Amino acid sequence: MTPEEFRTNGHKVIDWVADYLENIEQYPVKSQVKPGDISATIADHPPEIGEPFEELLLDVQQKILPGITHWQHPNFHAYFNANNSHASILAELITAAIGAQCMIWETSPAAAELEEKMMNWLKELTGLPADWHGVIQDTASTGTLVSILTAREKATHFNVNNHGFSNEKLRVYCSAQTHSSIDKAIKISGIGLTNLVKIPVDQQLAMVPHLLEKAIQDDLSSGFIPCCIVTTLGTTSTTAMDPLDEISDIALKYGIWHHVDAAYAGTAFILPEYRHFIKGIEKADTYLFNPHKWMFTNFDCTAYYVKDKEALIQTFEILPEYLKTGTRGKVNDYRDWGIQLGRRFRALKLWFVIREYGASGIRTSIKEHIELAKWLEYKVIEHPDFEMVADRTLSLVVFRYCKEIDDTKNDAINEAILAKINKSGKAYITHTKVNNRYVLRVVTGQTNVKIQHIEKLWAMIQESSKSI
Amino acid sequence: MTPEEFRTNGHKVIDWVADYLENIEQYPVKSQVKPGDISATIADHPPEIGEPFEELLLDVQQKILPGITHWQHPNFHAYFNANNSHASILAELITAAIGAQCMIWETSPAAAELEEKMMNWLKELTGLPADWHGVIQDTASTGTLVSILTAREKATHFNVNNHGFSNEKLRVYCSAQTHSSIDKAIKISGIGLTNLVKIPVDQQLAMVPHLLEKAIQDDLSSGFIPCCIVTTLGTTSTTAMDPLDEISDIALKYGIWHHVDAAYAGTAFILPEYRHFIKGIEKADTYLFNPHKWMFTNFDCTAYYVKDKEALIQTFEILPEYLKTGTRGKVNDYRDWGIQLGRRFRALKLWFVIREYGASGIRTSIKEHIELAKWLEYKVIEHPDFEMVADRTLSLVVFRYCKEIDDTKNDAINEAILAKINKSGKAYITHTKVNNRYVLRVVTGQTNVKIQHIEKLWAMIQESSKSI
Repeated sequence: MTPEEFRTNGHKVIDWVADYLENIEQYPVKSQVKPGDISATIADHPPEIGEPFEELLLDVQQKILPGITHWQHPNFHAYFNANNSHASILAELITAAIGAQCMIWETSPAAAELEEKMMNWLKELTGLPADWHGVIQDTASTGTLVSILTAREKATHFNVNNHGFSNEKLRVYCSAQTHSSIDKAIKISGIGLTNLVKIPVDQQLAMVPHLLEKAIQDDLSSGFIPCCIVTTLGTTSTTAMDPLDEISDIALKYGIWHHVDAAYAGTAFILPEYRHFIKGIEKADTYLFNPHKWMFTNFDCTAYYVKDKEALIQTFEILPEYLKTGTRGKVNDYRDWGIQLGRRFRALKLWFVIREYGASGIRTSIKEHIELAKWLEYKVIEHPDFEMVADRTLSLVVFRYCKEIDDTKNDAINEAILAKINKSGKAYITHTKVNNRYVLRVVTGQTNVKIQHIEKLWAMIQESSKSI
Repeated sequence: MTPEEFRTNGHKVIDWVADYLENIEQYPVKSQVKPGDISATIADHPPEIGEPFEELLLDVQQKILPGITHWQHPNFHAYFNANNSHASILAELITAAIGAQCMIWETSPAAAELEEKMMNWLKELTGLPADWHGVIQDTASTGTLVSILTAREKATHFNVNNHGFSNEKLRVYCSAQTHSSIDKAIKISGIGLTNLVKIPVDQQLAMVPHLLEKAIQDDLSSGFIPCCIVTTLGTTSTTAMDPLDEISDIALKYGIWHHVDAAYAGTAFILPEYRHFIKGIEKADTYLFNPHKWMFTNFDCTAYYVKDKEALIQTFEILPEYLKTGTRGKVNDYRDWGIQLGRRFRALKLWFVIREYGASGIRTSIKEHIELAKWLEYKVIEHPDFEMVADRTLSLVVFRYCKEIDDTKNDAINEAILAKINKSGKAYITHTKVNNRYVLRVVTGQTNVKIQHIEKLWAMIQESSKSI
């Protein structure tokens, strides 16, 4: 592709993207293909000779889009959202064009310095302690792993890093509702699943602090080393909020590293009226949330914060000859703040999103999303055939059809409602289990979701329940 | 930003990108800013009200570009390249616009199926075993960690995952020239740095197989469990090639998991004349290379291959209720093939790049790059004041000024040459140490590098050496 052709093709792609986003509601939200359908349309072997760009773009439309579940469709209510926005998409284009490798300050000074600023902006926007240190990780999975590894090293005086485990019996604590990425991190870090202590939850599905303390005391008397507590603000199933302030006090009392995972919920703390959920955060050690979920910023972009940055750096630092530079100590070399050496220029999209929306624009959108969830919650509560299953804390509504006396029948009907909605292509919802019952989850957090989308969804849910 | 404004702004950004790439040689390759220079131009606080998009684009030009080290400049000869290309940039734009979260098949069927196809295309293109299984990881650091974790679990019968370490004394082997990401992986996995055995290298800086075997035997007689051997094809310092075939036989003989890291070099195996370096690969267990380095595909994109995919999945699988789907077992859920749950749609850019270039187009470019390195190698060899320091295997030339009798003086002069070149803004080179001497590294692998760029660089190097 010559530079002139790139310019022409680039304009074509922009028009394709603009058309795609404008017409996104015409696509089925959840892809309707079966396993192998897309694969059958893709050549088995690479072409020997280059192909015209027009064919590539045509193939995206004809071969790829049928297999895409449209995460940017306003009726995407599944999992948690992974939002983008106009400004974020254009920032990603610039990032791809510059193609800078941001492993250390020297390889991309602007990326390192903008990252530090953007992490400070996010602290200010969401009410985090001003003296904490931020870094962009790719995902909450990675951020949690990074925190647990730092905790492991602090607890063993950096002995595991240097010599491996030698009979240290470390224990990590989280609630029974915590995200599976904690399990994964416990495995990766060599601590082992049986040493992940899952603390029971209350009726709101939040961790019970006195049971946490009891577990710690039991472990101490059995010779275990409590190494890390993970508090979740906004669990994946129901956005339950663990009581951070009380848990922080327990962590402090026993001198245990304390990580706070607010992957989805963290964006809501841009609204001061929700900051009671992070009361006590200054007593914790690390914290993360995902602007790539609810803050209109393309995946991947996890904002990870640490109080003691030296502990973090000491856990991950490497310094081979080919990476030695003269700026050591004067700047942030983010390679030493996490697992990967290579890093994309991810601060740019945050800069674009925050400046394009402004703080007030983000607050307005988040508030609107929460209002939509409240609307749906109200409809569920007032409907005789449906009931709320867990407290709505933010923009997730967890509920179920409950008309039948036999709950097994209710389960089957909820499952059938979900299948019908998702098969219709008009909306996409997912499920979870609460008290071992099959229940529906509806997230109202997509960038462009409006009341008409939730009205349409609610009408479909009611209708589906009647026709089953 | 309204949809209409997005279209208008998008066209402006495409023009900005096209201009940037066309004029890239007018920028200093290595950013000339000092720590804090960029930060001083960025607001300390987020704006309350959204700003016009024009200002964002202007700020990229005026505030960000001075702090960018231009990795896409043809005279970028530092580290290893992290190339993009026109087709790859446009694919990244589409990926950002679709904004699909590709954790499991069901959340993006097209992404999962295209990823499987592209991994097969890359196997075919680079001569890898047809029955291996591929997955895109973000970086070689992560890929290596994934392999070592799988090795750890195989060696301990999945005991560490489940119960943590209980006195297993695992050992990992690599050459003394291996990339620092191995050290990092050994720390993260809980094996501990002292259990990473660095095998001495020969004069070509490649691992000495019989010393590897001796180390294994010594460890076995001391009660250690040999867990993993890491072979490097194309070391970071000098692109030295460990003798894969001999190492594979040792790995097989002792039943040790064998990982092959060809992060940079792997792209060269698209040329059959270099495939002797991967002779014996079918005897290894995992292999990776980075299309995001030398294959014109935007970072991040590491092609990771595994022979026994069940061992990989068993190491990383998690299955919470909210991720259960009906397609389990029929499709690849790549979440279970690595560390992160969230994943971008990274196969698209590979599809675009391979189809835009065609296999022949990639081969032509890679061959040209290697020819440029040969040209420089020849110039170094014939120049009385310079000498080659390590064998050139591909597109990296490692050499030094050597006129002085006192090698400390030579070191200082080489360091001064590097500083002068990099300060000129006309090219960017990095250094390494070989036999404890400070030496220069020149990679000739940037997407758009041509003979005139290398001629210019060589002229500057000679001139710099005279004026010191």
